[in-house]
Order: sequence, then C-alpha cells, then structure tokens
Amino acid sequence: MNTDVFAAYESNVRRYGRSFPTVFKKAVGATIWDEGGKPYIDFLVGSGSLNYGHNNPKIIQPAIEYLVEGNIILSLDMYTAAKRDFIEVFVDSILKPKGLSYRIQFPGPTGTNANEAALALARKYTGRSSVMAFTNSFHGMSLGSLAVSGAASTRQLGGVARHDVIRIPYDGYPNQDFDSAGYIDSILGDPGSGIEKPAAIILETIQAEGGMNTASAAWLTEIQRICRKHSVVLIVDDIQAGAGRTGEFFSFDFAKIDPDIVCLSKSLSGSGSPLSIVLIRPHLDVWNPGEHSGTFRGNNLAFVTAGAMCKLWSDSQFIASVERTKTKLQGHLDYLVAKFPECIEHKRGRGLMAGLKCRSQAVVGRVHDIAFENGLLIESSGPNRDVIKVLPPITISDDELDHGLAILDHALKEQANGH
Amino acid sequence: MNTDVFAAYESNVRRYGRSFPTVFKKAVGATIWDEGGKPYIDFLVGSGSLNYGHNNPKIIQPAIEYLVEGNIILSLDMYTAAKRDFIEVFVDSILKPKGLSYRIQFPGPTGTNANEAALALARKYTGRSSVMAFTNSFHGMSLGSLAVSGAASTRQLGGVARHDVIRIPYDGYPNQDFDSAGYIDSILGDPGSGIEKPAAIILETIQAEGGMNTASAAWLTEIQRICRKHSVVLIVDDIQAGAGRTGEFFSFDFAKIDPDIVCLSKSLSGSGSPLSIVLIRPHLDVWNPGEHSGTFRGNNLAFVTAGAMCKLWSDSQFIASVERTKTKLQGHLDYLVAKFPECIEHKRGRGLMAGLKCRSQAVVGRVHDIAFENGLLIESSGPNRDVIKVLPPITISDDELDHGLAILDHALKEQANGH
Amino acid sequence: MNTDVFAAYESNVRRYGRSFPTVFKKAVGATIWDEGGKPYIDFLVGSGSLNYGHNNPKIIQPAIEYLVEGNIILSLDMYTAAKRDFIEVFVDSILKPKGLSYRIQFPGPTGTNANEAALALARKYTGRSSVMAFTNSFHGMSLGSLAVSGAASTRQLGGVARHDVIRIPYDGYPNQDFDSAGYIDSILGDPGSGIEKPAAIILETIQAEGGMNTASAAWLTEIQRICRKHSVVLIVDDIQAGAGRTGEFFSFDFAKIDPDIVCLSKSLSGSGSPLSIVLIRPHLDVWNPGEHSGTFRGNNLAFVTAGAMCKLWSDSQFIASVERTKTKLQGHLDYLVAKFPECIEHKRGRGLMAGLKCRSQAVVGRVHDIAFENGLLIESSGPNRDVIKVLPPITISDDELDHGLAILDHALKEQANGH
Amino acid sequence: MNTDVFAAYESNVRRYGRSFPTVFKKAVGATIWDEGGKPYIDFLVGSGSLNYGHNNPKIIQPAIEYLVEGNIILSLDMYTAAKRDFIEVFVDSILKPKGLSYRIQFPGPTGTNANEAALALARKYTGRSSVMAFTNSFHGMSLGSLAVSGAASTRQLGGVARHDVIRIPYDGYPNQDFDSAGYIDSILGDPGSGIEKPAAIILETIQAEGGMNTASAAWLTEIQRICRKHSVVLIVDDIQAGAGRTGEFFSFDFAKIDPDIVCLSKSLSGSGSPLSIVLIRPHLDVWNPGEHSGTFRGNNLAFVTAGAMCKLWSDSQFIASVERTKTKLQGHLDYLVAKFPECIEHKRGRGLMAGLKCRSQAVVGRVHDIAFENGLLIESSGPNRDVIKVLPPITISDDELDHGLAILDHALKEQANGH
Repeated sequence: MNTDVFAAYESNVRRYGRSFPTVFKKAVGATIWDEGGKPYIDFLVGSGSLNYGHNNPKIIQPAIEYLVEGNIILSLDMYTAAKRDFIEVFVDSILKPKGLSYRIQFPGPTGTNANEAALALARKYTGRSSVMAFTNSFHGMSLGSLAVSGAASTRQLGGVARHDVIRIPYDGYPNQDFDSAGYIDSILGDPGSGIEKPAAIILETIQAEGGMNTASAAWLTEIQRICRKHSVVLIVDDIQAGAGRTGEFFSFDFAKIDPDIVCLSKSLSGSGSPLSIVLIRPHLDVWNPGEHSGTFRGNNLAFVTAGAMCKLWSDSQFIASVERTKTKLQGHLDYLVAKFPECIEHKRGRGLMAGLKCRSQAVVGRVHDIAFENGLLIESSGPNRDVIKVLPPITISDDELDHGLAILDHALKEQANGH
Repeated sequence: MNTDVFAAYESNVRRYGRSFPTVFKKAVGATIWDEGGKPYIDFLVGSGSLNYGHNNPKIIQPAIEYLVEGNIILSLDMYTAAKRDFIEVFVDSILKPKGLSYRIQFPGPTGTNANEAALALARKYTGRSSVMAFTNSFHGMSLGSLAVSGAASTRQLGGVARHDVIRIPYDGYPNQDFDSAGYIDSILGDPGSGIEKPAAIILETIQAEGGMNTASAAWLTEIQRICRKHSVVLIVDDIQAGAGRTGEFFSFDFAKIDPDIVCLSKSLSGSGSPLSIVLIRPHLDVWNPGEHSGTFRGNNLAFVTAGAMCKLWSDSQFIASVERTKTKLQGHLDYLVAKFPECIEHKRGRGLMAGLKCRSQAVVGRVHDIAFENGLLIESSGPNRDVIKVLPPITISDDELDHGLAILDHALKEQANGH
Repeated sequence: MNTDVFAAYESNVRRYGRSFPTVFKKAVGATIWDEGGKPYIDFLVGSGSLNYGHNNPKIIQPAIEYLVEGNIILSLDMYTAAKRDFIEVFVDSILKPKGLSYRIQFPGPTGTNANEAALALARKYTGRSSVMAFTNSFHGMSLGSLAVSGAASTRQLGGVARHDVIRIPYDGYPNQDFDSAGYIDSILGDPGSGIEKPAAIILETIQAEGGMNTASAAWLTEIQRICRKHSVVLIVDDIQAGAGRTGEFFSFDFAKIDPDIVCLSKSLSGSGSPLSIVLIRPHLDVWNPGEHSGTFRGNNLAFVTAGAMCKLWSDSQFIASVERTKTKLQGHLDYLVAKFPECIEHKRGRGLMAGLKCRSQAVVGRVHDIAFENGLLIESSGPNRDVIKVLPPITISDDELDHGLAILDHALKEQANGH
Repeated sequence: MNTDVFAAYESNVRRYGRSFPTVFKKAVGATIWDEGGKPYIDFLVGSGSLNYGHNNPKIIQPAIEYLVEGNIILSLDMYTAAKRDFIEVFVDSILKPKGLSYRIQFPGPTGTNANEAALALARKYTGRSSVMAFTNSFHGMSLGSLAVSGAASTRQLGGVARHDVIRIPYDGYPNQDFDSAGYIDSILGDPGSGIEKPAAIILETIQAEGGMNTASAAWLTEIQRICRKHSVVLIVDDIQAGAGRTGEFFSFDFAKIDPDIVCLSKSLSGSGSPLSIVLIRPHLDVWNPGEHSGTFRGNNLAFVTAGAMCKLWSDSQFIASVERTKTKLQGHLDYLVAKFPECIEHKRGRGLMAGLKCRSQAVVGRVHDIAFENGLLIESSGPNRDVIKVLPPITISDDELDHGLAILDHALKEQANGH
C-alpha cells in the first residue's frame, strides 16, 4: 500500500495516518478494511462521528437516491425541501418526546463553528464579553473555541492571547473534596472576587479529550441552577457526547436539565457528512437576519442522512438494542479493570462513551499498537494521554463487539507481558 | 409551498430564505427549480461555491459510485485511497503545470477553518502574534477570522475585542492617489511607527464581500515583495476568488506570484460538499503531528468530487470554453454599464467574478427583487450593499447566460422605470 | 471656610473633600487643624502615607535645610549626593539587619508606578505574559495595576478588557475550609488546568482596600514555596502595609519570607512627599539601562526625608515605643469589639494596621460622620465598605491615641443609639 | 566622587548616571554643580521638568515658608488652603486670559497617571474602548500609556499585548506628500474600514521623545475638527511641551484650539516637585466621586510652588523676556545648522523646545560626550536617537545661554574634527 504521496505532499500536521500506517478503503458497520483487504474493528468511529456505524444502509440509501434524482446539494440558508424535512423529523422524533423547546441555527457544518456561534450569541444576548470554561475542556480549533479549551498544548495553538475566558474547576477538580459548584456560586456573587460576570458557562457533560472526566447529574443540575440565579447562559457543547453517544440522544438527558444553548455536530448527520446545529431556547434567539453565516450551512446531503438518523430514535427496538449494547460494554469493561489492575486504574465515562484510565501513557501506547496489529482501532485522550477511549458504534453487532473486546483483552495481556 | 416550519423552528438568523421566499428542490448546471417547478438562473452559486454548476455529471457521477460501493466516508486524517487520489490529481493537474510547490493541509472543511489554520501557522512560524489585514476584507465567522475582517457589522459579532490585528489600506484605498503599498513598506521598516511587526499579511485578490474591490497585478507583486523584504508571511485567502472563479484556477495566477500560504474552500469540492485546504510553501510547514485538527478534515466524498473537478483543468476544451464565457460576460456587462448610467456607476471585479457598482442600496434591492420574480438569483455586497455580484457558473451554457443577462437587463430597466 | 472654588473648578471625581467638608491647613503628629482652628485626630494618615505623623521634626528639618542650601531637587536618575545617602541608610538600617539582599529601582514616585515596574520586570524575566492576582486585591489606578485589582468597580475603570490576569483565591477565600494554596499548587502543575503558567503572583499581606483581610504566616510561606517550585516570581505589594505600618518595617517580616520583588511607596518618604522603590532580588535585576523610566524618579527632597525615616529604625527606643503603641491599640480594639457586638462583627488586620468589620455599610457611614463631627478622621474599606480602617501614626502619642479611641468609642455608642 | 553605592545597590535600569558619570549636588537657574564643584549648563532640565530653572527663588521661597510654618503636606483629595490657592491662581492667571474653560482633576502626580486618567475618562464618556495614537508618540511608562506610545522598544516593555490602540500617521508621516488628517477622516467615516470608532485621539503637539517632530497649526486645527465631526474626544498630552516649554503656557496656544482634555505635569509645579493635572471640558467631567484616585494627588508643597509659577504668567516683563530668549535661541540654532551641514540635517521643534536632527546616532553620541566634558548637559531623542534636544530653562540668563551655546558649538566642531 503506497503512502509516499502523503509523505511527499501532505502537511506534517497529519497524525492518524502515522499511528495507523495503512490505507483504508471500504467500511460497513463497525468494520473498516484497508486496501489490502485486512479488516479492523472500529472503536474510534471518527472521534465519535460515526455512532451509527459506517455506511449504515438506513442512512446512506436515502442519500444515494437524493443524488441520483438531481436534488440541490448546497443551498446556503435558502429554504429547501430537504432542510424542511430534517427540521420536522428532528422536532418530532427528538425534541418533542423529551418536552424540549428549541429554535435551530445552522452555522458552518463543524463543531467549532457551532461553539463559536453559541458563544457569540451568548455575548450578544447578555452584552458581556467573558465566558467561563472548565479545566480539561476541549471545544475546537478556531480561535474562539481554542480560547475556552483547557489543554495548554491546544490553547498555545493560535499564538495569540486567550482573552475573555475565566477558567473554573470541573466536577471533581482538583479532587472530590472540593465543592466546585459552590466555589463558582461564590465568585459569581461577590463584587470583590475579581471575576467579571460572564456571558456564559460552556461545558461538556463528559470531557472526552480531557480524559473522559464525567459530570454527575447532581452537579449538572446545580450548575444550571447557578447559571439561572446569576443570569448566565448555560451552553452544553454536546458535539462528542451527544447525538446518541452515551446511549441517549442528548448526553444530559439523564440529568433532566434543559440548557440554554446546545451544540451538536459529529454524529448528527449519521453518515459522517459535515453538519452542525445550535439549539437555542426561544427567548435567546436574538440574532438579526444574516448576522451569522457560513457557506456550507446548507449541506442538503447531510440533512437527508441526519433525518434518517433521527427516525431511528422513534423505533423502540433500536433503543432497546442500544441499551443492551451499553450494558454489555460496561460489564466487559468492569471485567477488564478487575483483570488488569497493574495496567488499568479505573473505568471512566458513561454508557457507550467509555474510557479506561491506565497507569501511564506508555501502557496506552503499547496497547494501541498491539490492538492495531491485531485489527482494532482505538485512541487515547487526557492531558497525559493515559486514557483509552472505547467508542464503538452504538449500533455495533454482538459479534463485532465481542471481537473488538477480545482484541483489547489480548492487547492488555500482551503489553503486561512486556510485548 | 409550505415555509411555516422555518418560521416556527429555524433561528431568526436565517437570511436567504427571506430574500428568496420559496422552497428549492432540484438543480442542474446554472438552473435551480423550486418545489412548484419554477426555474431560476443562478448567478449567486452558493456565494461562489458552485463554480462548476449544480450537479455537474462529471463530478457527481463518481460520488454516486463511491457511495454505492460502500467506500469509507469519514476518516479524520487517516490515509485513504480517495484522499491519495485527490492529492495526486491536485498536484498533477493544478500545481505542477503552474510550477508551484506546496504542501497540503486538510483542516476542518470550511473556509474559516482554513483561514484560522493559516493564521495559526504563520504565528507559529514567526513567533509573532499580530497580523495585518485590509480595509473592507472578509475572512469568515469564527473568532480569528472575524478579527481580520473589515466590516464593522461583522467584527462586532463575537462581542469581544479584536486583538492582534493591524488594519492597512487595500489597493486604491482611500483613493487612487494614495500609495498604500508604500505606506505599508514604511510602517514595517520604522522602529517608531508604533506598529508591531506582524506574523502575516492576509489578503483577498478581489474583495467579494467588501464590494468586489480588485487588486492589480502590480500591487499584488509589490505586496509580495514587501512581505519577503520584511520576513512577513503572505497569506492569500482564495476561498471565494479561487478554484476557478476568475477563469483561472487561482485568482492570483494573472499576477504570477507564489504566496506563502493559500487557503481554498467553497468551489474546491466541485460539488458543494464541504472541503477546504491550506497550501503551504514547504519551508513553512512547521506543524507538529496532530497540532491542528478537525473532525471533518477527512470528508472522502468531497475528495472524490474535488478530484473530478481538478481533472477538468487538464482539458484544453474546458479552458477555452471558460475563456469564451468570460469574454462574453465582460462584454455584456460593459453594455449594461453604458445603457444604465443613472443606475450603474461602473463595473468591478475580474473575469467571471464580476460586480456592478450601483448608485445606491435601494437600486440594488429593487433589481434583486425584480430579477427574482423573473427567474434570476443575484446578491449584493459591499459595506453599503450597493454592488450587484454577478457570479454565474464558469461552466454555464450560452443559453443560460443569455437568459440570465436578459433578466438582469430587464430588471435594471424596470427599476429605472420606478417599478 | 470657603469651598466654592472646589465646587466650581475641581472635577467631580473629588471624594474626601465631600466626606470631610472643611478646609485643612496645618498638621503636626497625629493632629490636623482646619482653617477655623478645629483639631482632628488622624486615624487615616493619607491612607497609610503618614505612618510617622505629619511634619515629624526629625524628618522635616533635614528637608528644610536641604532647600535652604540650594541643593538639587529633581535629577531624573542622575547620581546625586542625596540619593547616595538614602541608598546607604536604607541598606544599612533596613536591609542588612534583616539579612535581606535586594537591588533598588526608582520608578515614578507613586505606588502604581512601582507595581507596573514590578509586573513588567517579572514578565521580562520569565518571558510569560499573564500574572496571578487575588480576590479582593487592590494594586493601583494605572492600567496594569487596575488589571490585577479585585474589585469590580475598580477594574471597570479603564473601560478596556483586563487581560493576562488569572484570579486566584486569597487566604481564607471563599471560606476557611478551602485550601487556597493547595488549589493554586494544583492548577500550576496540571497541563490540563486551562491556566497559563504566569510570570508572577502579586499579593498584599493585608488587603487594605479589600477589607483588611489578613494572610497568615503559614500561608505566605506556602505561597513562596509554591512560587519557587513552579519558577513563578513572587511580588509583594507592600505599598500600604509596609514602611512600618504593621509595627515592623516590612509587613512580611513576621513570616520570615524573602519575596522576589517588593514594592514600597506611601510612607516610604516619611514626609508625605511622593516616593516609591522596587526591591529586586539580584538575579532578577535583568533591566537594560533606561528600559524603564519616569520623570520624577529623582525626587531628592523625598530621598532626604526617606533617609531620616530609615534612621529611626536603628533606634531601639523608637522600636520599643511602636511596640507599646501596637499592644495598646490592639487591646483597646478588643475592648470595643466586646462592647459593641451589635455593631462590630470582629477585628481584622495586624499590629497598627487594624480594622473593625461592622454589621453593615450604614453602620460604618454613621460612625464615620459622628467621629468627624467630634474630631476624628477614619475611613472605610472592603467590597461592601463595611470595615472601619484604624490607622493611627505609629509614632502617635499616648494622649492622641487615647483621645482618638475615645471619640471612636463615643461614635460607636451614638450610632447604636440611633443618633 | 564615590559612585560605588550606585553600582552595588541601584538597579541596572539606571541610565543618566551612566551618561553623566559624576555626582550632582547643588543647582540654581540653568547651572548645576557636581560634588567636586564643577558647574554645568543644563539644556536638559529634567526632560522639560525645570522650565523655570533650578531653585527659582520666586518659586522655592514660598515652599520653604510653607514647611517652616508646619502646614499640611499630604492630603489625598481633602480640601486644603494650599490647593484652593493653586486652583484660584491657575484659573485667573492661565485659563481666563486665554478664554478657556476647564475643570481640574488631580490624579497621581506623574505624567503617566494623568494620561491614564484622561484615557479612562474618554472611554467612560464615549462607552468605547479603543483609542487612536500616533506614530512616534510617547505617553508614559504605565500600561495604558505604554500602549499608546509609538516606539517599539517602549511598547515591548510591559510584556503583554497592547490592546485597544489604533495607530495613525502623525503630521508629515511617512512624508509630507501624505495627507494624514484626510486619511484619519476617511477611516473614521467608512463602515468597511476595519477600524473601530475610538474613544479618543491622543497627541503631542511636538513629539519630544519621538524626535522633536512638530505639528503645524493647520493640522492641529483639522484634527480637532475631525474629532468633533466624529464625536471622538481630543486629548492633548502637554506634559513635556506644555507649562511654558514652547514660550507660551500651552503648546497649542499658537493653533488657537481648545482640546477636550489636556494633561499637564513635569514643569507644572515649577520646582521639580511631582504634580500633574488633567483639564477637562466641563461637559466631559462625568467622573463619579472617588472613581479615580491616587495617594499623592494631594501634594501640597507642589501646589504652593505651582501657584508661584502661574503668577509669573501675569507678569508682562517675564513674558517679554521669554520671547527674547526664544528668538535668540532660534537664531543661534539656525546659525549652527548653517555652520555644520555635514553634521546637522535640519532644525526641529518650536520656540524654546528645539532640536537638531543630526546625520547619525554616532554624531549625537560624540557631541553629547564632548559637551559634558566641557560643562553642558544635553540629551538625544528619536527612534534612532539622532536628534539633539535643546531645552534650556525658559528663564535662562543671557550669559548662561551664550555659554551653553558656545559649548555646543565647540562640541559640534570637535566631533567634526574626529575628536
């Protein structure tokens, strides 16, 4: 398999191609094949962008038909039939059953575009410029999103100062003794705290890049209460944890909160096609027409596949199947934690968004490489890259899940044996 | 045609749906049909994102085949066969014939993602934080791109201060008597000028959103000379003007410059599917692996269609046809300028990226509305929105072009008659 | 007494003239007379700028002689005999007996000039741009000092964003259960904390404007240890608490620390003449010649009086007398706290830098006004202005102290009686 | 003369002590003596802080009497008799004869404190955050003042980004062909210029540190017109050029403008004692009581000497004498320009604020050293330090002026001779 072209012409910034040194070609469900025909189980799924598996036929077939019929592909924010259909099914299949009421903004189709729009809207609504963001957060690669991200290596990127961001401690940071919500409440209420009142608090319910740190329902409820008390907009960046990843559509469903703004992307299109939306509680929808824009905000092929994805959530069999898979995965991870205590510290995450906190970055690196050799794709996260992310498609078949977990088990054993 | 869903659930930020109050469905070449079957000639082409027409069969057919075969759709920056094919054809069909040597970065798939990556790289390479940007520029909607944009209404958006940006006068600003390049050279060389040495100068060769202001070849050459003299990175944001829009692939081909960094998006995929790249002169490619990322940087469907688009530029008949269309358009616009002096001040732009500077925003508004009624889509630009943008597909058929220009002629006449 | 001139021509910003509506003329020791000849005991002493009393003859007599002899008054940073004499006595009487080794910078003569110089030097030395500052801090009125101050009303002043400042919790903030030093240590050591490594931590050992909050010796020692561990410069802003205010020359003498940079001003000249210095541990003295300047950094009259002040600290009788006064003041304040529990919550501060935390701003306002009527000047502090500052000259006579405390006792009683 | 103490204990930042390696002691009028008794003519006068000479008896005698009588020295902004007297004489002797109406703010006593207060007030009044400042400007050493200064070496100082400052070209920058006022008018009026509307334009009428660049009356008048047209506050930093330096009290008297805010310091006290004021057109005096403060804003000794200085301007003989001295100085400098063309390019400045633009920094350095040896103190300015500043006391005697100019003539000759 020829990779010379990449070495010669692709920027040094390329990364996954280096850790998975092969050339991929086909993919169905949880399996992906390289040019040589070797299959891999995918527990990485495009960093959470393929929750419904590769080329899910219920999602891709409508897209093929749409193209064959010569329908409009790119439409800016003109009205199209495909967009109207998506809005209807999103409202009917996702929002209404949960009793949620939001207006939908279509920004540029990437997660960072959505977060930038959300932050801009919160700043406009409140007339305040600073925002609060958490330790170990990650929100994207454009300047506004970089600014609110927690990792030093990420924030350095823009090369300019990160302004208007106030860093606050996440649930359990720096340790479980510390009442982070109480601290946030204190500094918001004290005129001498030296902290400007922010436009918004932005958070992930599970900090995927930050090491799979998980907020409790009680903490999320308390943060929403504090935001409302101090008239601060609560933004949930549900780009990686949402769109089904935890086993429910929104990652905050379990906490029964209704954030002021919710950002979705990654798995939203169901197909891997770029799409993002910003959900806005109606009283906050103070945009002027055209005030925020983006060329690819009208990606109609993605509307078609996203609509097909949403319909899955009206199917009780689908939901029951996801639930079963979740239970199975959690059970097996508990087993691995018990089996490899010298390698794994503890389990992290929630539902199908799981992580294994390991003893060191070196351990994780070896497990990653052995797994790849044996046909499993995984990735690491956390400031010290010592957490294995386990993100199978939520539609994964029992066979694929068993096979993937077996390879992981094997890799953990081999690395322990000093392989 | 039912638009209630948009009014009920889409954010107030929607704009084109308001100015074109219908629901679009199918589209081929330069023609787009609404649900009721009414056709419109498209001189807007997704703000320059559909230079090769809607659903161009040479571009879309390979995409349909790719999907039908179950190939991989989203791949982060793993190596894939589709990406390798795109890189090869881009190098062979576009770069090599022009004698250009660049390495290719795939950031998130929108234009603003590309500009943010370019600015971050220039800052990293030089170790400097500020950048120079021009009056009336537009570079995108995320915070780093907003900061370098010229329009007050755009920059206000983020609600935070726009830092590290030094504003400099574009070619011909504030008037033709002023030697803007000489001024820039002066302030870069004077330790008392009060201007920090910037990491980069970022420019568009034609300021589309800024009113179709056009830089001359001499001025572009001089700016590149000044950048090299003072060791400042030259970034050309070729997102709207590039990928064929002016009639050549890069909008700066006519000036025979080789900018340090070039950003492409919009029409790059040929199909309207989101894609962007950053071209980097090899010595500037100082990224560390994984230092910049983005979920949708591996949009393989767009690689397939972008490759098909690139191949067109190896076809001399295609190039000759574009040349003919360019000449025809320019000739007809000259005719309109002469025919409607009370309405049009002068022509702007270059090649197939043309504009008509009108006497007022009101004139443009009326022409827009009459044209829409009669089956033509156009849009306005400029700080006072008094410029009509004329952006037909560069592959438009003679019949479609004639028909579109006839509707425009009619609309200009009607508005002059106080319609 | 005519105050019309002030109303007609002085800016609305004037404040003390409004709360003490009379015109002052003469002053000796702890007593100040208005034009009508009415005496007032001064427990405000220029917000800590007249620790050695008004017109202390040991300090003022040398100044008069200096002027009469026609010696140089303003000298920029040229070498003068007066400056040399000051440096010698400062080193011999203050630094050497404490075993401290510092180099001396003379910035502009105000406290904020000193803090700005200290922050600039720490940034230069470390190459980092941000600094850590505490809740409820106050460091001055120029932009760099405003930025690090904690009170919202102060920070708003510049009207621009306060950049490069990271706010951290002071000793005992938000409550005694919280290990603020431990939290600071955590976020400095964690690459995912979202906090840039700062150039410096700047602190007051007693937050005078912030409400007379007092740091313990243990906490100060721990903060110095954390700074050294993480290579962060420790700046003590000893402008109000230093130069003798607590009863020792430096406010941090009791904690036996040796901060990297110390800023002194206010009472440093002994006379009320503007003077400030920055003390720099020798390895940190990385200034280039002339890199920091200020017209009035050579205020020779202040050098003369500052030298006379320093000599007092070589006099054991002087030191014993200050010690006695300190004990007496503290004892009497304890008595007042016990006597007026419905008005006073508790005592704050340390040594001769004392405060009474009252139940409300209204209580303090009434005590202030009754005290003024009866011949005592005091002021309030804290974010809610509910703390009475008690700052007599440290050289106050027993009679004056008794008289001042009697007026305060009377005012507390009167206000309790609803006067 | 022993300078060991300075080498051992004063920070490396010291500068004038290095270029004038002696120890000064006494000073009267334009003459200053070192410890060894050697006299020097002073054409540097504390960078414009001793316009009325050293120890001017009309100014110092009242100060000595004030001290001897035991009057109050430091009073914050309480009302004092000395402050009232100063306000009265400033209004009667300075403002009223010129028909000017201002309210007076007393900030901290240094020039940079005054500029910071002026910028803060303009930001508060307009609600805007950015300010415009000129190429080659200098406004002080605290962060807000640094930000608006033009020299790269100065701005680097704070080590943090210089925000909210828009740099604009001064009169004659980059060359006389360029209509800098017209350019400023253009960018303020154009919504696409990319320039935020600023709170203020801050300027010096002669840029002393910037190289003695001089604005014309026509340009100053035009800038004031542009400011009023666009509702931008005009701040004149008259710290070095004002208080008599040019031969009139305000440096802008000759242009007959009335700026919105004027900052004075340096020679304002007449004696070299630190004092500064901010003059505010009454409608702009929107400060709240106590909103801006500063410990040493009540420097009563400086009020006494400043009042004595102001009275001089009611004396027609004094004014005539200054006028004569001005004519004499200008005539002699013209003579030197003509005599040493290989060394001097041209004369700069205005009135008694004069400069000689030389061929190189090396020339100026040698002239400086030879002059010092022969008993004359001068200094250089400009981004390339190739301008000799000639700032004699405006009260200099004919003998002293002749003597100083003779030494300068000699030094120019010697350096030309390769001395």
